[in-house]
Amino acid sequence: MNSRTIDLNADLGEGYGPYRMGDDAAMLEVVTSANVACGFHAGDPDIMAATFTLAAQRSVAVGAHPGYPDLWGFGRRRMPYSPKEIERLVAYQVGAAQALAAYSGHRVTYVKAHGALGNLSETNTEVARAIARAVRAVDRTLIYLAIARSVMVKEAQEVGLQTRAEIFADRGYSPEGRLLDRSLPGSLLTDPEAAAQRVLEMIRRQGLLTTDGTLLATPIDSVCVHGDSPHAVAMARTLRKRLEHAGLTLAALS
Amino acid sequence: MNSRTIDLNADLGEGYGPYRMGDDAAMLEVVTSANVACGFHAGDPDIMAATFTLAAQRSVAVGAHPGYPDLWGFGRRRMPYSPKEIERLVAYQVGAAQALAAYSGHRVTYVKAHGALGNLSETNTEVARAIARAVRAVDRTLIYLAIARSVMVKEAQEVGLQTRAEIFADRGYSPEGRLLDRSLPGSLLTDPEAAAQRVLEMIRRQGLLTTDGTLLATPIDSVCVHGDSPHAVAMARTLRKRLEHAGLTLAALS
Amino acid sequence: MNSRTIDLNADLGEGYGPYRMGDDAAMLEVVTSANVACGFHAGDPDIMAATFTLAAQRSVAVGAHPGYPDLWGFGRRRMPYSPKEIERLVAYQVGAAQALAAYSGHRVTYVKAHGALGNLSETNTEVARAIARAVRAVDRTLIYLAIARSVMVKEAQEVGLQTRAEIFADRGYSPEGRLLDRSLPGSLLTDPEAAAQRVLEMIRRQGLLTTDGTLLATPIDSVCVHGDSPHAVAMARTLRKRLEHAGLTLAALS
Amino acid sequence: MNSRTIDLNADLGEGYGPYRMGDDAAMLEVVTSANVACGFHAGDPDIMAATFTLAAQRSVAVGAHPGYPDLWGFGRRRMPYSPKEIERLVAYQVGAAQALAAYSGHRVTYVKAHGALGNLSETNTEVARAIARAVRAVDRTLIYLAIARSVMVKEAQEVGLQTRAEIFADRGYSPEGRLLDRSLPGSLLTDPEAAAQRVLEMIRRQGLLTTDGTLLATPIDSVCVHGDSPHAVAMARTLRKRLEHAGLTLAALS
Repeated sequence: MNSRTIDLNADLGEGYGPYRMGDDAAMLEVVTSANVACGFHAGDPDIMAATFTLAAQRSVAVGAHPGYPDLWGFGRRRMPYSPKEIERLVAYQVGAAQALAAYSGHRVTYVKAHGALGNLSETNTEVARAIARAVRAVDRTLIYLAIARSVMVKEAQEVGLQTRAEIFADRGYSPEGRLLDRSLPGSLLTDPEAAAQRVLEMIRRQGLLTTDGTLLATPIDSVCVHGDSPHAVAMARTLRKRLEHAGLTLAALS
Repeated sequence: MNSRTIDLNADLGEGYGPYRMGDDAAMLEVVTSANVACGFHAGDPDIMAATFTLAAQRSVAVGAHPGYPDLWGFGRRRMPYSPKEIERLVAYQVGAAQALAAYSGHRVTYVKAHGALGNLSETNTEVARAIARAVRAVDRTLIYLAIARSVMVKEAQEVGLQTRAEIFADRGYSPEGRLLDRSLPGSLLTDPEAAAQRVLEMIRRQGLLTTDGTLLATPIDSVCVHGDSPHAVAMARTLRKRLEHAGLTLAALS
Repeated sequence: MNSRTIDLNADLGEGYGPYRMGDDAAMLEVVTSANVACGFHAGDPDIMAATFTLAAQRSVAVGAHPGYPDLWGFGRRRMPYSPKEIERLVAYQVGAAQALAAYSGHRVTYVKAHGALGNLSETNTEVARAIARAVRAVDRTLIYLAIARSVMVKEAQEVGLQTRAEIFADRGYSPEGRLLDRSLPGSLLTDPEAAAQRVLEMIRRQGLLTTDGTLLATPIDSVCVHGDSPHAVAMARTLRKRLEHAGLTLAALS
Repeated sequence: MNSRTIDLNADLGEGYGPYRMGDDAAMLEVVTSANVACGFHAGDPDIMAATFTLAAQRSVAVGAHPGYPDLWGFGRRRMPYSPKEIERLVAYQVGAAQALAAYSGHRVTYVKAHGALGNLSETNTEVARAIARAVRAVDRTLIYLAIARSVMVKEAQEVGLQTRAEIFADRGYSPEGRLLDRSLPGSLLTDPEAAAQRVLEMIRRQGLLTTDGTLLATPIDSVCVHGDSPHAVAMARTLRKRLEHAGLTLAALS
């Protein structure tokens, strides 16, 4: 796998005011791309600017990470917004992120949807299309970072956006290739070495390994890791080491 | 005054959710530039998109109109944000406005500060500089629409922004050239014809007419009118007619 | 119908900051009970205090009118809160309303749910029970003002709350006794005299008149009118006149 | 000092949505009174209910801890609200806290102002009076927990509220008896034993020990400790041990 490059992304800048979520500084030493919260489910202008500035210093790429306007629920509630409303609230957040990245000496190169908005875009065509239309309208050079084999991939391509596909380092896949609900057994991998091994195999074979052992073919451009606990940071570090040891080049999406 | 052009600007899109402020559709028939609220003191993504769309249809130019994050106070409270915090909350709003304008088939060409933020930038150098730095960082091609003879003019020029100067159609000026406090006699002109007459004289003589009869020289590029009451709309219409009758060409800033 | 008393209620205090919804002063001359927004979907502490004060001066009873935390959507979106979360956000709002009523020299005597929360409590047992439990926990002397023949009536009674039943002056009822969806023909009555006539008949026969002419028996303690447009105020006035002319005594719930 | 009782209070429930501030469970094993955030600067209905419930289980008294409506700034910004506006936003929060305490099987027995609102009430007579008036209007049986020798003490007494005075375990006092600005040397005590020793001496001598060695007489009913870091929890534990060892009875205000 020597010639292959892979991106490592994580959600960062997820604090608000005096609150913080995870160790952003530590994660910026590990990942190649930072998904930065845009102020609706988390993030405020100061935290956004600080995150973009730190990412620029670490040469980590940054993406806008829009979510539902739900600070109380951290964007995890499935809010009843219509596709048109989603278009506008995504466009708003992407523009705000672009501006604060420019202010901080950086540049947003991709977009990834957060929380319930991201989960819905895995299977809900209308939501996926709304997000894609918003990103395309704001800046058609932005890459859309989509869940591998989700309806988002097709919707983004149809409006003319470039897409890249991500897998999750610590999440199990159903036989249909969907993220297993967190309440199900096997939904969460906790052993860093086992998780890294599985990621390497998925990258080598270019497909999702499901809980029933099937391989569902997909390009894999990025691996999503979490950083919201010391345990999560340790898993991300292990994964990075294993990927490098296997000869992969870690590099942001392009 | 035949060869001269003048811009007419008003604050629009100042609703939120089910609420509206003034008759935007009527005002878009009168003004050449619409200052669009960006979601912090008023405006939500749907109202912003609707306002940008309507302005595009009417060929009315649009500016970002950032304010303090104070929906409850409509951006009229002097909130205790530091210059650095102001830079970031202005950058955030300008970017959001640019994105929703693009989404709506329009383009933001200028910025004007709202409410208490705008008032402070008339005389407070630190606040004025913070706004200027934010706009320049986000997009240095944006014009800054500043209160005539305010410290904002110099601060915007110093960071390399183009500026244009505005006068107020219905507000009295102190001998020092500052907007008279609304509690003082003469602070508010209510007769449309008298207000139009005064505006024409200020444009012809290129200066502010103060309450003690002095003329304070300033370029005048734009006239600000209100649209938040039927009375205000009527005054704006009268002003436009008088300006056109005097041979002025009404056109957006460029 | 000479000996009968009936309550007339309307949603008031539905502004926020600089925004207003309807003519509260006019409506307080018509109704006997004001449902006061509690700050989550509309209302802020200043507007709440002003509304309670004015109601006290007019001898109009006041109720807490809690809604979803959705200022943007005015509480009309069906937000995905769990029953436990609804209990807490209702309790919070009822307590806030009680405090501001006390501060304003008045006293909250009843509770009515607003918007999507109210609509859900018509048929959704879990939501209805959550609201009832919250009110009972805060103050078991509060009356619950429920939609006639809704599941809310039974749920409120089961936790030991007193309930009163309301009908809507200008809304059509389905054969099942449910409020007709606003998109259906016959869902909205616009002729004040016809609406008043129908209300009088429902009160006299103590039942809901449905679109297919059936009468569904229910006690009727209150009639809900709208006040968010000049037309609505006129309808409320007509209704009050007709009720008085028919010999009914207009009086708040007790 | 055997017969004397003293209260130990700390700010708790200061999270929001997914965020937490400090180790509330640990602090509830140490303090006798919990100042519970009311949703404006921190706290949401779920966190409030959880905090009241846990405090009830631990037999810890609870107070409403209202602050400015400034989640972004955690209530630490001096927001430009008028005395009348402060009255209403304090009344609102106190009522909300009372309701959620009742819902959680507990009862609010006192009020203490948070952050910038509390700091202002130390020396600003108008702000202090506004808070006192709000509390009195909502429930005149509530105790007001005031900073020792602040203007708050007199204002609360003048409106007829019972007051109790608190000192701060880890903050230095100026020669005038005011809390030293955090930027000054000596403003923050970090050694638990030294802090406990100083608190004991202040309680024994019933006065504030200032940085110049003066004793300013004041009754001392409560000691405020912080719980927002592991270090702070350790200091609170040490203080409690030393107070008990000195023969003081730790008990909530009454």
